[in-house]
Amino acid sequence: MAHSNGPVGPGLLIELEREAEVPLHEQVERSVRENIQAGRLAAGTRLPSSRALASELGISRGVVTEAYSQLAAEGYLITRQGAPVRVARTVRASAARPPARSMLPSFPLNFHPGLPDLAGFPRDRWLRSLRAAWRQAPIDAVGYPDPRGVPALRQALAEYLGRVRGAAAEPEQLMVCTGFTQAFSLLCRWLADRGVDRIALEDPGWHPHRLIIEQAGLEVAPVAVDADGLRIDDLLSTEASAAVVTPAHQFPCGAVLSRERRAALIEWAEEGERLIIEDDFDAEYRYDGNGLGALQGLAPDRVAYIGSASKRLTPGMRLGWALLPPWLAWSLIQAKAVEDSGSEAIGQLALHDFIERGELDRHIRRMRLRYQHRREALLEALARRLPQTRVSAGAAGLYELVELPEGSDEAALVTAAAARGVGIEGLALHRFNPTGSPGLVLGFGCLSEPAIDRGIGLVAEALQEVEDRTI
Amino acid sequence: MAHSNGPVGPGLLIELEREAEVPLHEQVERSVRENIQAGRLAAGTRLPSSRALASELGISRGVVTEAYSQLAAEGYLITRQGAPVRVARTVRASAARPPARSMLPSFPLNFHPGLPDLAGFPRDRWLRSLRAAWRQAPIDAVGYPDPRGVPALRQALAEYLGRVRGAAAEPEQLMVCTGFTQAFSLLCRWLADRGVDRIALEDPGWHPHRLIIEQAGLEVAPVAVDADGLRIDDLLSTEASAAVVTPAHQFPCGAVLSRERRAALIEWAEEGERLIIEDDFDAEYRYDGNGLGALQGLAPDRVAYIGSASKRLTPGMRLGWALLPPWLAWSLIQAKAVEDSGSEAIGQLALHDFIERGELDRHIRRMRLRYQHRREALLEALARRLPQTRVSAGAAGLYELVELPEGSDEAALVTAAAARGVGIEGLALHRFNPTGSPGLVLGFGCLSEPAIDRGIGLVAEALQEVEDRTI
Repeated sequence: MAHSNGPVGPGLLIELEREAEVPLHEQVERSVRENIQAGRLAAGTRLPSSRALASELGISRGVVTEAYSQLAAEGYLITRQGAPVRVARTVRASAARPPARSMLPSFPLNFHPGLPDLAGFPRDRWLRSLRAAWRQAPIDAVGYPDPRGVPALRQALAEYLGRVRGAAAEPEQLMVCTGFTQAFSLLCRWLADRGVDRIALEDPGWHPHRLIIEQAGLEVAPVAVDADGLRIDDLLSTEASAAVVTPAHQFPCGAVLSRERRAALIEWAEEGERLIIEDDFDAEYRYDGNGLGALQGLAPDRVAYIGSASKRLTPGMRLGWALLPPWLAWSLIQAKAVEDSGSEAIGQLALHDFIERGELDRHIRRMRLRYQHRREALLEALARRLPQTRVSAGAAGLYELVELPEGSDEAALVTAAAARGVGIEGLALHRFNPTGSPGLVLGFGCLSEPAIDRGIGLVAEALQEVEDRTI
Repeated sequence: MAHSNGPVGPGLLIELEREAEVPLHEQVERSVRENIQAGRLAAGTRLPSSRALASELGISRGVVTEAYSQLAAEGYLITRQGAPVRVARTVRASAARPPARSMLPSFPLNFHPGLPDLAGFPRDRWLRSLRAAWRQAPIDAVGYPDPRGVPALRQALAEYLGRVRGAAAEPEQLMVCTGFTQAFSLLCRWLADRGVDRIALEDPGWHPHRLIIEQAGLEVAPVAVDADGLRIDDLLSTEASAAVVTPAHQFPCGAVLSRERRAALIEWAEEGERLIIEDDFDAEYRYDGNGLGALQGLAPDRVAYIGSASKRLTPGMRLGWALLPPWLAWSLIQAKAVEDSGSEAIGQLALHDFIERGELDRHIRRMRLRYQHRREALLEALARRLPQTRVSAGAAGLYELVELPEGSDEAALVTAAAARGVGIEGLALHRFNPTGSPGLVLGFGCLSEPAIDRGIGLVAEALQEVEDRTI
């Protein structure tokens, strides 16, 4: 039904649809505007007079006049009594239009260490909670939300964190935010504003910690980890004013921060009025019964605890929570309020419903079993197909640190695996000290047991290829 | 079913539930931990021996030993061969537990200028789109999202913004974010990082603009507005490197930026390679047919356009979009990716579905009519009950600027109205120049016509009270 009237003036292509709901003058207006924006009508170009264009298009002159004056009011055209209509001098065309693709890399077999089982997310149960939230929410629940997070969710989370993580959780000290990332980014920038210039990080440690700290304009002080977690002796010599730790399950080495180190870390914080930032990303997934409560419970005044739904439910939900020392909570909530006016409200109410119904506990119990089996499948596949590697992490979480034989070319292996459709991460990505041994951080959360076996088979092939090349 | 066993040691209160699913050792552990966190067991306190506590509670000694060693591993207790068990020296109790209320003020009659009709939000239709999104989303849609926003939504938004707002919208230059606020905050901080130190703002202008700019560490250069919008002559003398404008509908004065000023503003930006930040918050709501397309369409390389679902649908959704110049898009998307790893995905897919079904257009058409009636009700109530005031804004948007008689005590009026349960905003809140005339910015979006009339009646009472007091 679209009638192209062909080029009318220089580069002017106008399409009219006579039976459309949109009035003709608006169609002319839209066409001319698009011609200008696409660069087909350059700045300064003279347009046909309204009389000429109307006769060309077979429409009344008033329609063209109306379109021209709207475009003049918007600044696209210059219309002056007696002078020809021209494209305004200030108009700039925009670039060509590439397609709207996702910028995330995608692999048929993805051993991403941060991914839970996406297919295992209980969509129907979640949808039930969402429906309940929409049906029960008071009218103003769709207005601007409480910047700290919806009160009902903070209450439910405080109860959950106290019960499951042994945290000293006050609903008033909880801040709901866009995943772990936003809470940590706000914290880093708050520290930077107060003159802090250095934050201690585990080495190796989760690479995005570093990106966020550096984007906040802070320096990173890497501190080595061993089988007992962060080496506190090394921490003491850093002059850092804050430290980020993963005490329940070190990323990527898998250590649990020992009792002595927990005490020493808290002492370090108490003495210098320093801050401990606890990243509690996957503590609920332990398969050996060696789980420890959150560090935050020991020193709620010195620890900013951050957790999220990303590994517990799904990262696409972008829900995180920070349990903050009272002296810090208000500043951070205020910063969040200014920065994004609070997080989406109905998803928070749905999570509240989901926790209250016991669905979160049920889901984590079910997934714990599933991940345990996937982990066993990974260890088995590694033992059979890559016997030259060694696995060092404890029985927990969604990933394993796999040590490669000394001298292996980790980067070449990652590339060769990618060429086979297998996404793996090298340990180097998460390392500050460049002299460490090569390794891989393999996530098993989002792959079925057969896919894990197939994937490790392809990694073995890739390693063989890399070794053949270097001989 | 909860059996309180009463105080066991000094301040030690342990509750056991013998028929519960939770194993006894976990119950003991939880109780002791809570006693420590609540400060009932201070640091260094000596605990009963495992034998004594077991006999006191009528449970086996192994249960207490297990609980004690778990708490020791977590750092709450110190257990040493032959020495009594003590609460660790480093443990700190947390403060008392206040209730989890919302921190937003709430009024029975709220003339908040930023609120759309919350009751008018089509929950059932939105829920249908949410359901469709959940049912149709591929598995990885619940994984980490594209930090720019879900591709399908960016495509739909680009089409919408081109069609309805005359924007030069490229899906690749669109960034989906947490409302207007996050996009603007990211922009301000990006500018600050690049050495910009001053941003021009409309005066009067939307108060949160100022908060966000100042939180980014930048200075505000206020520029007066008149009936044609921002005074460009004044802008030229500011030495600002960027300017925030509301060209379609100035907040709070209601002016439309004139054709000449649009051209001059773009020239200012082109000449100094400066940035125009266009806040397009409610342009679709015009009741006089005088709507203008977005400024961005005229100079996509110099204008960062920001819009959101807040007035078009509802603010609780926290969905906004920025249409960025190509030279700026990548840096900002990268900053957003580091800062929050992208926005919630399924809500974006739901909005895509909602736009594709034509629901957004339908909703805006329906609401436009409703707001037009509410605006008329406000003007009528003002004319009848507050004839001494004057309304100056054009027929558009969700608020009116109401000029009070010279010499009125604006702040006292706001307080007196609040005491009557009526939320109103004084013009002073949005003003930099403290010498301006008094006024109110009254939103009519979220109040029914009878409520508007009742509310204005109460404001008239409040004004009378304030005047009586000052005589």
